[in-house]
Amino acid sequence: MPTTLTLHPDRALPTDPAVRELARRIYAQTSGLPIVSMHGHVEAQALADDSPFGDPAALLVTPDHYVTRMLYSQGVSPQALGVGQPAAGPREIWRTFCRHWHLFRGTPSRYWLEHELVEVFGVSTVPSAETADELYEQISAVLSRPSFRPRALLDRFDIELLATTDPATAQLEHHAKLAADGYGQRVIPTFRPDALTHLSRPSWATDVATLSQVSGIDTGDYTGYLAALRQRRAAFIEAGALATDHGHYLADTTPLSQPQASSIYQDALTGKVSETAAAAFAGHMLHVMARMSTEDGLVMQLHPGVLRDHHSTSAAAFGPDRGWDIPVGIEFTRGLRPLLEEFGMDPRLRLILFTIDETSYSRELAPLAGVYSSVRLGAPWWFLDSPHAMRRFRESATETAGFYNTSGFVDDTRAYASIPARHDLSRRIDAGYLAALVAEHRLTEDEAAETAVDLAYNLPKIAYARS
Amino acid sequence: MPTTLTLHPDRALPTDPAVRELARRIYAQTSGLPIVSMHGHVEAQALADDSPFGDPAALLVTPDHYVTRMLYSQGVSPQALGVGQPAAGPREIWRTFCRHWHLFRGTPSRYWLEHELVEVFGVSTVPSAETADELYEQISAVLSRPSFRPRALLDRFDIELLATTDPATAQLEHHAKLAADGYGQRVIPTFRPDALTHLSRPSWATDVATLSQVSGIDTGDYTGYLAALRQRRAAFIEAGALATDHGHYLADTTPLSQPQASSIYQDALTGKVSETAAAAFAGHMLHVMARMSTEDGLVMQLHPGVLRDHHSTSAAAFGPDRGWDIPVGIEFTRGLRPLLEEFGMDPRLRLILFTIDETSYSRELAPLAGVYSSVRLGAPWWFLDSPHAMRRFRESATETAGFYNTSGFVDDTRAYASIPARHDLSRRIDAGYLAALVAEHRLTEDEAAETAVDLAYNLPKIAYARS
Amino acid sequence: MPTTLTLHPDRALPTDPAVRELARRIYAQTSGLPIVSMHGHVEAQALADDSPFGDPAALLVTPDHYVTRMLYSQGVSPQALGVGQPAAGPREIWRTFCRHWHLFRGTPSRYWLEHELVEVFGVSTVPSAETADELYEQISAVLSRPSFRPRALLDRFDIELLATTDPATAQLEHHAKLAADGYGQRVIPTFRPDALTHLSRPSWATDVATLSQVSGIDTGDYTGYLAALRQRRAAFIEAGALATDHGHYLADTTPLSQPQASSIYQDALTGKVSETAAAAFAGHMLHVMARMSTEDGLVMQLHPGVLRDHHSTSAAAFGPDRGWDIPVGIEFTRGLRPLLEEFGMDPRLRLILFTIDETSYSRELAPLAGVYSSVRLGAPWWFLDSPHAMRRFRESATETAGFYNTSGFVDDTRAYASIPARHDLSRRIDAGYLAALVAEHRLTEDEAAETAVDLAYNLPKIAYARS
Repeated sequence: MPTTLTLHPDRALPTDPAVRELARRIYAQTSGLPIVSMHGHVEAQALADDSPFGDPAALLVTPDHYVTRMLYSQGVSPQALGVGQPAAGPREIWRTFCRHWHLFRGTPSRYWLEHELVEVFGVSTVPSAETADELYEQISAVLSRPSFRPRALLDRFDIELLATTDPATAQLEHHAKLAADGYGQRVIPTFRPDALTHLSRPSWATDVATLSQVSGIDTGDYTGYLAALRQRRAAFIEAGALATDHGHYLADTTPLSQPQASSIYQDALTGKVSETAAAAFAGHMLHVMARMSTEDGLVMQLHPGVLRDHHSTSAAAFGPDRGWDIPVGIEFTRGLRPLLEEFGMDPRLRLILFTIDETSYSRELAPLAGVYSSVRLGAPWWFLDSPHAMRRFRESATETAGFYNTSGFVDDTRAYASIPARHDLSRRIDAGYLAALVAEHRLTEDEAAETAVDLAYNLPKIAYARS
Repeated sequence: MPTTLTLHPDRALPTDPAVRELARRIYAQTSGLPIVSMHGHVEAQALADDSPFGDPAALLVTPDHYVTRMLYSQGVSPQALGVGQPAAGPREIWRTFCRHWHLFRGTPSRYWLEHELVEVFGVSTVPSAETADELYEQISAVLSRPSFRPRALLDRFDIELLATTDPATAQLEHHAKLAADGYGQRVIPTFRPDALTHLSRPSWATDVATLSQVSGIDTGDYTGYLAALRQRRAAFIEAGALATDHGHYLADTTPLSQPQASSIYQDALTGKVSETAAAAFAGHMLHVMARMSTEDGLVMQLHPGVLRDHHSTSAAAFGPDRGWDIPVGIEFTRGLRPLLEEFGMDPRLRLILFTIDETSYSRELAPLAGVYSSVRLGAPWWFLDSPHAMRRFRESATETAGFYNTSGFVDDTRAYASIPARHDLSRRIDAGYLAALVAEHRLTEDEAAETAVDLAYNLPKIAYARS
Repeated sequence: MPTTLTLHPDRALPTDPAVRELARRIYAQTSGLPIVSMHGHVEAQALADDSPFGDPAALLVTPDHYVTRMLYSQGVSPQALGVGQPAAGPREIWRTFCRHWHLFRGTPSRYWLEHELVEVFGVSTVPSAETADELYEQISAVLSRPSFRPRALLDRFDIELLATTDPATAQLEHHAKLAADGYGQRVIPTFRPDALTHLSRPSWATDVATLSQVSGIDTGDYTGYLAALRQRRAAFIEAGALATDHGHYLADTTPLSQPQASSIYQDALTGKVSETAAAAFAGHMLHVMARMSTEDGLVMQLHPGVLRDHHSTSAAAFGPDRGWDIPVGIEFTRGLRPLLEEFGMDPRLRLILFTIDETSYSRELAPLAGVYSSVRLGAPWWFLDSPHAMRRFRESATETAGFYNTSGFVDDTRAYASIPARHDLSRRIDAGYLAALVAEHRLTEDEAAETAVDLAYNLPKIAYARS
């Protein structure tokens, strides 16, 4: 196996020489554009504190569930990767990762990691059992430089706008510090109320109490709860937020009557809400949130269809978001109908829909986005943020929804150092798709170049513009 | 952006040079074949009256829900496009359309419209805000020529056979006039009884009364209703019909007993049928229609899986078929089983299945068509009548169903002037698919050329031959 | 149409010249590897007896439901193909088959049959009405040679390991004979208990009685039934088995309590089990079988989602597995959860999952295989064992599951002579997929070659290694 790591300038572009040449030219129009990152999971605190990153394992292995889940799948224990009760030091974790490098063949993690190693850390050695220690030293050295602190990387990565994702109860003190330091327009929060709208989560009562405390509004009844949510939305807007973010099991949006909702809320407060009632309340709250968005202009993001913590023993031991979230089939046409009946043609609403069930692209999402003025399709997300899946998205959605009913590229990562790689990959795949349209004489090259720039930069800004 | 519109001879063919060369040769075998258009929504009256078409907007924008829905999705109101209470004159509508030309990038509408502009109207200018008026004049001038009347276009388009879609209660007077004028073999009706088999439609009672009147048979009970339907089928056959057409929400075909069906029918007459009973009756009637087809030889077309009028406010304001019909997931294997158990191997039945849920191609439709002698797969339909979707259909269905269990190309359009473009696109995509099989040495070029001709011309004639 | 049949060395490789050149080099690494065939339906008796094969029709037409179903679909009767009460002699069957050769264009059967005709039978004539008799003579002559007996073909085909599929009640006498003749390591049984775990099958009572007799354990209660199953598993292991095989309608794996299971079992013995109870028991037994696998190390194979005998008249007349089995949509995420909660991270379990519902690849199967250490994805199976479907599998599964959570190629055939063709096709498709990754600079050629060898040879051996 070769040991020198390089990034080929044509990587992830189409293989047909004529199409590749076109794709190169189209990609050249977008490769230098700033990054607009509207849906991320980097912690605001990291940027507020601007502390140096830790060791290579703490930056690239332990927190990245794409990486850890692949290693679990081949028998590596979470503890051996520093997850849960660490059973290994950082150097050992790094060695384990490097020894399993072949597992990532053909995955987007491989693309991202290669990009990070070469572009961010200046490494030119393929990870392996033999090279692990050498790489560890090199990366550690880079991480210790001031130019690799989080804020410096904002510049190095040319990130124009970075949205974090924050619970509705967040006090936003890190964003306040960022604003005080002049980063207020560049790093903004996103309002995520899931913990408050899912009544059967074990932490719900605590979270609602926190909501009351943070908002200064009594959440002892449903009216107070809504008022407190409105207060938080206003606080987020004040802190620069442009959007809300909703992760639901289903896409149901059926509204309840005020008495019904109120009664379920009371049951939840006394701890006796049924699963059915909790599900109905969650669907109802999407309808409520859409209405609030028409009032305050926050863009609404919805990504349903994931069964969280599929392996509950591991969830209990290692916490959520560790790699055991598994998609389920999801129905949008009937589920979203109540919301769209009321707000789908309302110019005040912008609803961005994400899925990890690809069957919905051509069947449901593109037809919905292709007629409802409020709807935009988010980028292929999570497991689908990968070369083939991005191609399938464009191939399945464009013919019915066009390009201009999509949000442009939206990354979705906890791995700060992977952001440029993800945007780069997306720009390459879109360039390839557009190049093929040109080569098939279905689009002119000028149109393709303009569309590429829109997908990479303009459409995310338009999609996430608060109305 | 360029302003000269041309049609490249290689458009929509594969990009790989060697495969394209093969595809060109295969396409050359089919590009000049007559058009057999077995499933259309052009009004018979237009051909019976042979009046000139109206203005460019009335021909190309207002009636084409592919075009209008895309414009709605970006905030253009229906009224601004002449839908519902028009809020704009034809020239203004046309300008709105031209100004939004970029929205159609990557869509089949773009392909069809370019083809129409260049081939039908001799236009060589790209639509835009700047060119809208110039185009309007040019197209208007062409539309005023006698050679652009509907019947003249039948010749110009080389349409050998055009099937319209007509309600079961149609008196077929336009088809009678066409027959009297010598067009009886060329323009034929299709029997569509949906309005009569869906008991919960608001217009059902009226439609059943019309059925009685038109057939001269009392529809006061279920037996009379069936007799009246039989009478209409005979009248359609007399008028040249080859097929029936059934649009259903589900693919259920479970038969009811005579007393059950009769009782539900009576409930419907008195206006007290439940949704459940109406759904059961609709499924039952598919079974009944299949049996009637074995008796009178009409080919049966079924296309389930659409939630009609998803946005009911718009449906109420602007009528049906305006762009708010949205697909839902559809199940065929269990749903069709009762019908196929009884008639699936019956040489007297021909059942052509359409879907807009692509997941059913490889999982259900190809396996069904690949064993049941009565079943043929219709062409990719509606949202799927597009380059990538047509490729996916061939790639997903051929390996299990082969080519010869498909119906060949069937367009499905209200837009008369788009018929040649649609057939042309289909022939190009099939040529590309077949060329790739040749390039992969899985088919000889002679076989590919023969298959291409079959898909474009022979298979539709065979699939729709009344038994 | 041409009449000379040849196999092009580049068949089924990518069409792009640069990618094809890479694919050729990668394929060259695997084309000569021995065949490991871990999931087949060749009868052990054929190899134990080592009798000559019959005539061309009896070898290539009548038993191959891929071939017969395609002919049924175009109106050929089963009897005319020797199925059920034969209505035609072998030569006539063969003529019917040859006359319909064009139906197989674009299907994998065409690829396999061409491979068999040329490589196995040395034929260089395209089947047709005209050439049928000539081909019949040629193939018959070959079949009469001793070098074409089943055991000789094991060598000719370079089959290193062949697993048969055997009912749990099998006495394994053919495997005993094979072992006595020195083939015990080369032809091994697979434990398939479906007939015993599906309580509502008409033959269940008989099969359970046979189980008792063969195992020598009283199956008069649930405890005895489990003990008898354990005894058979041990007997299969003794005979060389590495795996179990489970064909279920659903993927449910919810365990029942011992009293519940016991009570349903008693009801089944007295012939009064409900469909619901039988379904619950079937799901429960998957959980039980997984537990037994953790105890005895047999690899567990699961392939749910097929509605067997869709056309019951034909099933009654011609028996099962005649082409009327039709897939249904299948849900894995919730269905497998009980089993994976308990055994998904257990190093003693290996669970190989097959599907013919492609929608589950990227949505459910790859995410599951990409985190649970017990799970491997089986090869695309049955209707999906075809060029485009194999490409879709790699494109949909690899980005989330990687290559190393797949089982490598697993054929699944009753058609002995097609085994080399199937492995050859799979190696070509994988070479093409890997070549494209190299051409896109996402993998080095060395890595691609290593991965190709793993997929063709090493991974099946690893996946089916008894723990």
